[in-house]
Amino acid sequence: MTAVPGMYGDIKVIAGTSCPALSQEIVEHLSKICGKEIHLAAAEIYKFPNDNTFVRLGESVRGQDVYIIQTMCRPVNDYVMELLIILDAVRRDSAGRITVVIPHLAYGRSDRKDNPRTPITGRLLADLIQVAGADRYVTIDLHAGQIQGFFSIPGDALTAYYLLKDYVVKNFSMENMMVVTTDLGFAKGGRNWARALDLPLAFVEKVRKDITAKAMSLIGDVHGRNILLLDDEVDTAGSVVDAVRLLDNEGALEITLCFTHPVFSPPALERLATIQDRVKEIIFTNTIPVDPAVRLRKMTVLSVAPLLGEVIRRAHEGKSVGAMFNE
Amino acid sequence: MTAVPGMYGDIKVIAGTSCPALSQEIVEHLSKICGKEIHLAAAEIYKFPNDNTFVRLGESVRGQDVYIIQTMCRPVNDYVMELLIILDAVRRDSAGRITVVIPHLAYGRSDRKDNPRTPITGRLLADLIQVAGADRYVTIDLHAGQIQGFFSIPGDALTAYYLLKDYVVKNFSMENMMVVTTDLGFAKGGRNWARALDLPLAFVEKVRKDITAKAMSLIGDVHGRNILLLDDEVDTAGSVVDAVRLLDNEGALEITLCFTHPVFSPPALERLATIQDRVKEIIFTNTIPVDPAVRLRKMTVLSVAPLLGEVIRRAHEGKSVGAMFNE
Amino acid sequence: MTAVPGMYGDIKVIAGTSCPALSQEIVEHLSKICGKEIHLAAAEIYKFPNDNTFVRLGESVRGQDVYIIQTMCRPVNDYVMELLIILDAVRRDSAGRITVVIPHLAYGRSDRKDNPRTPITGRLLADLIQVAGADRYVTIDLHAGQIQGFFSIPGDALTAYYLLKDYVVKNFSMENMMVVTTDLGFAKGGRNWARALDLPLAFVEKVRKDITAKAMSLIGDVHGRNILLLDDEVDTAGSVVDAVRLLDNEGALEITLCFTHPVFSPPALERLATIQDRVKEIIFTNTIPVDPAVRLRKMTVLSVAPLLGEVIRRAHEGKSVGAMFNE
Amino acid sequence: MTAVPGMYGDIKVIAGTSCPALSQEIVEHLSKICGKEIHLAAAEIYKFPNDNTFVRLGESVRGQDVYIIQTMCRPVNDYVMELLIILDAVRRDSAGRITVVIPHLAYGRSDRKDNPRTPITGRLLADLIQVAGADRYVTIDLHAGQIQGFFSIPGDALTAYYLLKDYVVKNFSMENMMVVTTDLGFAKGGRNWARALDLPLAFVEKVRKDITAKAMSLIGDVHGRNILLLDDEVDTAGSVVDAVRLLDNEGALEITLCFTHPVFSPPALERLATIQDRVKEIIFTNTIPVDPAVRLRKMTVLSVAPLLGEVIRRAHEGKSVGAMFNE
Amino acid sequence: MTAVPGMYGDIKVIAGTSCPALSQEIVEHLSKICGKEIHLAAAEIYKFPNDNTFVRLGESVRGQDVYIIQTMCRPVNDYVMELLIILDAVRRDSAGRITVVIPHLAYGRSDRKDNPRTPITGRLLADLIQVAGADRYVTIDLHAGQIQGFFSIPGDALTAYYLLKDYVVKNFSMENMMVVTTDLGFAKGGRNWARALDLPLAFVEKVRKDITAKAMSLIGDVHGRNILLLDDEVDTAGSVVDAVRLLDNEGALEITLCFTHPVFSPPALERLATIQDRVKEIIFTNTIPVDPAVRLRKMTVLSVAPLLGEVIRRAHEGKSVGAMFNE
Amino acid sequence: MTAVPGMYGDIKVIAGTSCPALSQEIVEHLSKICGKEIHLAAAEIYKFPNDNTFVRLGESVRGQDVYIIQTMCRPVNDYVMELLIILDAVRRDSAGRITVVIPHLAYGRSDRKDNPRTPITGRLLADLIQVAGADRYVTIDLHAGQIQGFFSIPGDALTAYYLLKDYVVKNFSMENMMVVTTDLGFAKGGRNWARALDLPLAFVEKVRKDITAKAMSLIGDVHGRNILLLDDEVDTAGSVVDAVRLLDNEGALEITLCFTHPVFSPPALERLATIQDRVKEIIFTNTIPVDPAVRLRKMTVLSVAPLLGEVIRRAHEGKSVGAMFNE
Repeated sequence: MTAVPGMYGDIKVIAGTSCPALSQEIVEHLSKICGKEIHLAAAEIYKFPNDNTFVRLGESVRGQDVYIIQTMCRPVNDYVMELLIILDAVRRDSAGRITVVIPHLAYGRSDRKDNPRTPITGRLLADLIQVAGADRYVTIDLHAGQIQGFFSIPGDALTAYYLLKDYVVKNFSMENMMVVTTDLGFAKGGRNWARALDLPLAFVEKVRKDITAKAMSLIGDVHGRNILLLDDEVDTAGSVVDAVRLLDNEGALEITLCFTHPVFSPPALERLATIQDRVKEIIFTNTIPVDPAVRLRKMTVLSVAPLLGEVIRRAHEGKSVGAMFNE
Repeated sequence: MTAVPGMYGDIKVIAGTSCPALSQEIVEHLSKICGKEIHLAAAEIYKFPNDNTFVRLGESVRGQDVYIIQTMCRPVNDYVMELLIILDAVRRDSAGRITVVIPHLAYGRSDRKDNPRTPITGRLLADLIQVAGADRYVTIDLHAGQIQGFFSIPGDALTAYYLLKDYVVKNFSMENMMVVTTDLGFAKGGRNWARALDLPLAFVEKVRKDITAKAMSLIGDVHGRNILLLDDEVDTAGSVVDAVRLLDNEGALEITLCFTHPVFSPPALERLATIQDRVKEIIFTNTIPVDPAVRLRKMTVLSVAPLLGEVIRRAHEGKSVGAMFNE
Repeated sequence: MTAVPGMYGDIKVIAGTSCPALSQEIVEHLSKICGKEIHLAAAEIYKFPNDNTFVRLGESVRGQDVYIIQTMCRPVNDYVMELLIILDAVRRDSAGRITVVIPHLAYGRSDRKDNPRTPITGRLLADLIQVAGADRYVTIDLHAGQIQGFFSIPGDALTAYYLLKDYVVKNFSMENMMVVTTDLGFAKGGRNWARALDLPLAFVEKVRKDITAKAMSLIGDVHGRNILLLDDEVDTAGSVVDAVRLLDNEGALEITLCFTHPVFSPPALERLATIQDRVKEIIFTNTIPVDPAVRLRKMTVLSVAPLLGEVIRRAHEGKSVGAMFNE
Repeated sequence: MTAVPGMYGDIKVIAGTSCPALSQEIVEHLSKICGKEIHLAAAEIYKFPNDNTFVRLGESVRGQDVYIIQTMCRPVNDYVMELLIILDAVRRDSAGRITVVIPHLAYGRSDRKDNPRTPITGRLLADLIQVAGADRYVTIDLHAGQIQGFFSIPGDALTAYYLLKDYVVKNFSMENMMVVTTDLGFAKGGRNWARALDLPLAFVEKVRKDITAKAMSLIGDVHGRNILLLDDEVDTAGSVVDAVRLLDNEGALEITLCFTHPVFSPPALERLATIQDRVKEIIFTNTIPVDPAVRLRKMTVLSVAPLLGEVIRRAHEGKSVGAMFNE
Repeated sequence: MTAVPGMYGDIKVIAGTSCPALSQEIVEHLSKICGKEIHLAAAEIYKFPNDNTFVRLGESVRGQDVYIIQTMCRPVNDYVMELLIILDAVRRDSAGRITVVIPHLAYGRSDRKDNPRTPITGRLLADLIQVAGADRYVTIDLHAGQIQGFFSIPGDALTAYYLLKDYVVKNFSMENMMVVTTDLGFAKGGRNWARALDLPLAFVEKVRKDITAKAMSLIGDVHGRNILLLDDEVDTAGSVVDAVRLLDNEGALEITLCFTHPVFSPPALERLATIQDRVKEIIFTNTIPVDPAVRLRKMTVLSVAPLLGEVIRRAHEGKSVGAMFNE
Repeated sequence: MTAVPGMYGDIKVIAGTSCPALSQEIVEHLSKICGKEIHLAAAEIYKFPNDNTFVRLGESVRGQDVYIIQTMCRPVNDYVMELLIILDAVRRDSAGRITVVIPHLAYGRSDRKDNPRTPITGRLLADLIQVAGADRYVTIDLHAGQIQGFFSIPGDALTAYYLLKDYVVKNFSMENMMVVTTDLGFAKGGRNWARALDLPLAFVEKVRKDITAKAMSLIGDVHGRNILLLDDEVDTAGSVVDAVRLLDNEGALEITLCFTHPVFSPPALERLATIQDRVKEIIFTNTIPVDPAVRLRKMTVLSVAPLLGEVIRRAHEGKSVGAMFNE
């Protein structure tokens, strides 16, 4: 099979205002692997005095293969609406094909009705993105894999797992290592790490009915083990800090935190600072920008730009994305 | 024709967090005209630490005739998303019929592509509201009447004109009065006032190419006239303040401002304060809440609650809304 | 709030051919709680010689509130298509509102793309049901809660948890009891049981890379405990039988199996027979019919008919379903 | 006009499990006329123990021009669902364009509501195929031409008429030949044969009210004529066998059967065997596979593979399909 | 089952300008069978000087059960657009439910692609009606039953067969009568008449390749028979006149024409006049208005108003329509 | 960026029957700028005797980039339906991309509900065009810019402003010139002309309540000025003739009429003839054909063919249309 480069026009990359550094890194990587200069398309994006978001593309995308990069961090609703408005502008400019690249998709925890009379905002968000004109989506480490099914457009639901795992394997001894997840929400994710690295597995979870205090308990035995403490994201860091303390109490040795999305809602950074001396390293990616000025000493940030750049290139050229991971 | 009360279930009114006072006023008016207590349905609406909006209805709306009240003022995107999420929750709770009541619809100025590569966010917003589950909409004084056509669901695009006109006629002499609009965007609106009150008409507008300064000009003659200065909304108040100064220069006598939507983006209040001594009264409605603490001395706020309450009652009972205005 | 009985017409219950006994039980329960005779609507459903499914309703459903009962057990695709065809017939007969009642929804495990180039059949199925004309759905214990988000129509995703829990609490001592799940797919389900009953929690799971044999391991300590072994469904019974053996090896005392959906794909019954002497009871519901002739001695079948009947009544009358569970 | 080969990517042909021999024949024909090797794309298609159909494509179809071949014979619902699931997998793998090639479309007789409260399953099936992701369809000899209008996607509704006619003209003398149809459902089809070959026409039909027996009657006179007995398909062969007997009674000479779709629902083969000595030849196509082991002596099977292969090539290259038939 | 009168509001009947007399007759019949005065709702429908059709409803239809009556005779496109515009007005006025009542649906002969590169306007028309807002349709004697499947909304595809048959049976002797159709397009329709009345059947058709002249031939024997000559509609009357002459030549006795839709495109009336002396009666319905001034002497017009009125009543009350015909 | 010529196949231009001369001019211009012969694709378009419009394309458009040219002048509804039917034929022939080119879009004045119970036919028309299969639209000088938002497909809403302005600037002295609009509906259009040419601005409008007579008034002072009298279209010419008379009375010097769309509904030509001696020139475009035989002496018709040809070329090649106007 021969791919047909350019069948959707040329690559055009447009960045929303949520993650300018990552966006720039992506086009630099794209330029390198495509062997030609690819820049971020010019676009004016700002708010009018009346707080209405305005978008004007600085160059035509008519008949082009457009990739819109926008992560969904704070202020979440502004970035969501901005993405939708960019989509509308791109669609009405007669783009050839439109892919939204959303490193961190918001509203992932609102993926079901656990209680009556609640929304499923994750599905709503998928519908909004589709009605605004997206033809495809690319995202990383969804809170639940099923969120793929909220979209009826095709997409690439990528994982930063290989990126994180390669770093961990290269920098840590697997000897005496044990995988622990901060709660049962990441149980199957932890199981996959454990299977891949052939490591034992344990979980931290609140089991008792009284959720007030001291309720954290450990399922499995961590005594005398080095710990790879995993989750998909760290939000306010309450759970992860509790987990570190519990592991410490239970006799764990070195503890390394590893997760994809640094949501870091206040007071996450303050909380993580309190356990910084106890942990060996805090590893995560740049799906959400973390101001270097506030980063903690032990933090290591791995960039998803090469991953996203490569996926954009393959999508553009009609080549398999699955093949990237040797499946 | 006999109406069929309750064919869509009972009235349920849910308020977003944008205009609590108006929402409360509406249910109080509804209670009065329906002859039974109608309260705002209980609902938890807040943001998670990660800035994701959450909604949980406090009571079932299954099979009921639901009205969601949300105006679209600052922070606009948060209120838009909140409305969409409430819609999703209401829809998934199997509501009988869902009407969104949006006293001031945002993005009204983004109603066409005046320049290439811009969005039509007004249409996008209509699509978002529909995909989230609204069956009908109610709104007041759209920036352009054509925005009705952005919706494919039926709706009641109301006007505060009668409310404002009745107040003006009751409190001012029409003797020697003249209608002026602050720009040509409201030209046909001004014409309608002029026709109804049998008054002459003039316009303020920037005609000259150099839009930098002093470019404001008057089309028509206002010398020796009392002026009713009209627009649909006041945003940063730049135009209206310029217009007042121009009218003053051109020999106008008393000047009264009258408009529907007090958008009042900064520095609107500061600017209006500078002309407060020159104008007789500043009349507008509460489609957008204005903190009483910052209201200017000469401001008069007319409430749209009776209008919206009456429309909700008629919609619920299957009665003509058009008939309210004697057409 | 007063409900409006009959606003969608009268209740009409139509049974597909998948679960006639449960369907009959539901209308009997409905008759009792509604205080009037409600029968299964007459319908001819059969296959033509050319294997095409045919449906003809025996009575008009014009303007009625129709409930179609069809579970999705073997032969799955026949029952799916039959449901879709019934939907088409009901829709084209101008039904007032159509609710599909699917005690066990098939394709729940195809709810994400775990590998490239696979379908998300769970979402596809939701789309098929919607395009065929369903207005609402009712189902029990989805394989993943997120499948709710595959539907854009509203629905009631019920749980048999209360039914099973009440039976367990009534018939077993909680003293020395422990909750164990047969794999991590039901980890959060198990956690909820553990929290509600204030019991400790453990998991059976395959952690090691070599998945060939003896790979089953236990996360947590079950020695000397009575075990409540949980899952959402039992398919071929391979995992559950392995789990019982592992628990036995690890020193568990009494073991009781408890799950919602008796899928019982061959050779499930043969396998369960091999552990029948070791377990105390095998408890499940009738979301899928199990021929009494092949039931094992220790099996207890709890009926979901009262649950479904009550939900149908409430949906019909516009009453809260969430309130059934005291939330 | 110059065609643009590859504008939808390369040709990818995927076979469902319904007609493997025909699918293989098609790609062999395609390879020949396209001058390059085109193979059936690798795909795993099987059922899980729980009877849920599973599909996994063995190679990427990203950006390719995909043709899915699936006929709809027994077990019909399994093949329908399998097709829909393949569609979902192909769509979610970001195929460039997707065409379903359905040699025999099921549910063609359910194309209208002849009686109240029946479905129109033919339309439903078209909707299912579209919602699952097909962009185009190709099929042969629809039961009614109007079924084309059930699809809103474009398609090529082909006919095997030319294939059958060319064979008949080449192998039979038109001298003294007469066209007869087995019932009035194929009346216009028979008329078209008669017009094209300039032959007289007659019909077999049940006219009398008592449909019990002996009710078959002939409209037209066949005495002393050789007969070309036509229909679009043979299902249980009841009608065709009755027709042959009636023609025999009415003095017909040689009788040759000719139809497109060998549905052959039991006991079709047994019935046809009873008239095998009376008829000269039984001619049909391979839109539905007929096991060579059970074929009768006088059966002649004409392959539609060249027809379908040529249409696929033309569709892929943007060339006229209508021109194939010299219109 | 008890129906719920008024669940969609009150009946509102709106007439387009195509068939005012029939519309009036329908509301008179409705008034009689509903026991209350039902009038045609006031509506202004006219063309602006620029030939744009304008509609304004004279009374509110908010929450009502609306029936729009519009047949599709000459000028066809004007009546089609007028219907669509009325639909838009009714929908935007928040009607409860909207049913279009189209006694004669245009574009019925464009129901398939008999040739390449032609439209299927029948399906297009169904899509237009749906997108304009119809919830249901009612029509009479579709050119092909499959056109029902062009609609995805439910509808009542009625037949004037009972009306015509009852008239024929009452006014003619069935002794020596024979059913003949003017061409094979109505072959199955003719067969149904023949079966119901237990009469023999023959067809007129052009079989020979040279379609120029004298090509008409008869399939079956009519000598010495009284003839009931049937079709669904008479357009230019070319076929029917040819058929009468052929029947006359072949020795038929009395000939009576009977069909549903008097399309009567010029020069139909002139042509029919030429055979008026040869035929006994020309029977049809008023699905299309025929100016009494131009009606021929032997024409009998049966009114479909009671049929349509009764169907509207039943649809409104949620009662079976199928039951009207004793099925 | 390099464009990808032919990514949607070759250009195919199909003309409806509304503006054959303009269509021919467009393909001639296209041939010139594309450097190859582009002809109007063969198509039979006519009405059957029963007034049903029929379309048959004379050549295949499979996989091609199709442009359908149809303006919407009298008979409006026929041309609208004809366009929709052509769309259906093109879509079902598997066109690669379909753009409708509508020089004058009808129903532009029905763009909002100014009164209750009226349709928004402008939006309806956009929906009809989309449901019939258009992927894009091109049009000129919409009655209101917001009509762009009635479409959800992308499009190029062009303006003849540059064409008209260039002609005016070249042929007239701007010395002492003043811009006047015939009513306030074109107020902002007039403002744009005034700003661009740095000219003063005035308006004609009916302000008084009694609209009976003499009600025309002038806002602004035209005494001693040459007048450029502007509007977007001239319909019956009532307003424009009144305006000319009023300007004459008010002391205007030379008066030149300039507008885009010569709708010229009767008695427009008669009315314009009455002021022909008073005006200097009547300038408009050929978006609607005006029979040369009836053109008035002072009329100048500017062709939009080069504009539409250039836009088609750019759309086809994926090049910016906005860049044509130097933005």
